[in-house]
Amino acid sequence: MSHSILIVGGGPAGLAAAEALASIGRHSILVEKEERLGGAPILSGYAKLVPSGEWAKDAIGGMVRRVEGNPLVSVRAGRRVDAFEGEPGNFNVRLSDGSSTTVGAAVLCTGFTHFDSVNKPEWGFGTYPDVVTTTQVEQMISSGKGVRCPSDGRKPRRVAILLCVGSRDRQIGREWCSKICCTVSCNIAMEIREELPDCHVYIYYMDIRTFGLYETNYYWKSQEEFKVKYIKARIAEVTSNGQKLIVKGEDTLVKRPITIPFDMVVHAVGMDPNVDNRTIASVFGVSLQPQGFIGKANTYATFGETSRPGIFVAGSATGPETIDDSIAQGKAAAIAAYALVNGAKAAAQAA
Amino acid sequence: MSHSILIVGGGPAGLAAAEALASIGRHSILVEKEERLGGAPILSGYAKLVPSGEWAKDAIGGMVRRVEGNPLVSVRAGRRVDAFEGEPGNFNVRLSDGSSTTVGAAVLCTGFTHFDSVNKPEWGFGTYPDVVTTTQVEQMISSGKGVRCPSDGRKPRRVAILLCVGSRDRQIGREWCSKICCTVSCNIAMEIREELPDCHVYIYYMDIRTFGLYETNYYWKSQEEFKVKYIKARIAEVTSNGQKLIVKGEDTLVKRPITIPFDMVVHAVGMDPNVDNRTIASVFGVSLQPQGFIGKANTYATFGETSRPGIFVAGSATGPETIDDSIAQGKAAAIAAYALVNGAKAAAQAA
Repeated sequence: MSHSILIVGGGPAGLAAAEALASIGRHSILVEKEERLGGAPILSGYAKLVPSGEWAKDAIGGMVRRVEGNPLVSVRAGRRVDAFEGEPGNFNVRLSDGSSTTVGAAVLCTGFTHFDSVNKPEWGFGTYPDVVTTTQVEQMISSGKGVRCPSDGRKPRRVAILLCVGSRDRQIGREWCSKICCTVSCNIAMEIREELPDCHVYIYYMDIRTFGLYETNYYWKSQEEFKVKYIKARIAEVTSNGQKLIVKGEDTLVKRPITIPFDMVVHAVGMDPNVDNRTIASVFGVSLQPQGFIGKANTYATFGETSRPGIFVAGSATGPETIDDSIAQGKAAAIAAYALVNGAKAAAQAA
Repeated sequence: MSHSILIVGGGPAGLAAAEALASIGRHSILVEKEERLGGAPILSGYAKLVPSGEWAKDAIGGMVRRVEGNPLVSVRAGRRVDAFEGEPGNFNVRLSDGSSTTVGAAVLCTGFTHFDSVNKPEWGFGTYPDVVTTTQVEQMISSGKGVRCPSDGRKPRRVAILLCVGSRDRQIGREWCSKICCTVSCNIAMEIREELPDCHVYIYYMDIRTFGLYETNYYWKSQEEFKVKYIKARIAEVTSNGQKLIVKGEDTLVKRPITIPFDMVVHAVGMDPNVDNRTIASVFGVSLQPQGFIGKANTYATFGETSRPGIFVAGSATGPETIDDSIAQGKAAAIAAYALVNGAKAAAQAA
């Protein structure tokens, strides 16, 4: 019988799970397929996180440093789980480096994959170099180089942010909302306006979903303090006149076609299921949801249960999720995994 | 030095906090001001919860029964905390029944207060008996009596659900979004259509915020499978012609005034800060946010910290929150509280 917990994925949820277990004196093995921990916020170079306003490299970087320095967490970066067999309290794990170990339970914190904008070709990504993604703009900001047009390095004078790229779009099989892109886009719009006060920023939206208290700090602030302009529209296409990018669509409030030239167009890319989810489902023997995210039982009893006893799930592996909620879920699922193993131990001792 | 953790509030977050601590073998004292545990879902008689579709009395009722039967949780219902003094690891708690105890830390799971619709008088609540709230409709459904017009008990043929009552409304000092009312309203609309197939249900909205995977099961399903009608509108007033309720407003998509008669009008009431928050802040010495919710530090290091060391916070006490996330946060904050006390113990032993 093993009391270690396997955590798969070193993003916010996985780091939080490892910290929660260490905080109650329990050992975990954290397997991450990339060479570095931190997940999307670190590996994709996010800038300031919502809603805290803290830089990703400080906020999530701090989680990474604490986990890497924690003697109760064995970090196995640059490796995958190739096999996972057994029963709660006694699972055999084989990693891609050929090593094996035994764990009592597992928590899948395997995250999401950013939507690839080349799957929405009519909106210009891959055709025009100044059509970029929110992730690229985050990288421009976090690098300290500022927001510049990739084609020639100039400061954009007009930027359009298109919401719901790869979200709420049945034409391309993504009917879900990615939950956080509205707020992230409001935040990016304010960052651009702060760096480039002469740049006009427009946000094209279907519904503005800056839910909860975000409303105050993002929706209102972006409009009133930062003069970001919101257009409720259905986008038809993004083309070029040789000098400017042209966004064509229908303003759904006035029911009229609108055509506006921009220097830069930003795709607010959604959250796809992790591209590895079929493999993950196969290796761990867990069910996927119809959309391809990992299935999760209700939260009322044991938190974060998958379809297989002893395997738990947390964060954006189960669907679009905020960083804050991924962290809470990582901790809650880790404690559920611990309790399962501990309960099995108590039962074994009583027998 | 005490190792018990005080949990204040017996709703989803507080119940989850108590269960998390018990699952790692730790004792908690759960204080609830009402005579019964369960929080809003039980005390307000919610019907089926989103997104699980499970009845509140089963889902949250199950949490209540497990906590009440857990020897590691001392339930103190019908009592309030009158005083809380000391330092982490050694706080003295005095309850309203005159009893005192010592705890190592506290988790505030003190929840929210439903917006009171009489504060939006032009929308007819308090004037016309058939203007009701989402909470009242939940009660009609969960009671098994069905959705009926309070004035005469008839089955409504046309129902309007008005979103954002007490939310996103600066005229009445509520600029925040209450996060869950859109999804709850979609769910209620489908429930009405299921019970009363001849009843037409309209949802008046500013933005539809059925975020994340909710989109699939609520936004699309309500329109396509249940034929719920959505009107993007700004409501002016709800009046009566003596026979029907009259909803007047402006359709903001076609920019025209619309006046539609209904049998029943439902206010989708938002989440206010707990009306007791000033007292709670005073007794516990914690800061409130500008909107009146309890302030919370970022989630990256210690989860759920308030402005006072040793006091944590989770769930809708900090702002509008879903039940699922309240549960995750309750568990995460409880573990943070435990770790603080345990760390203090280890330091004391080492000294």
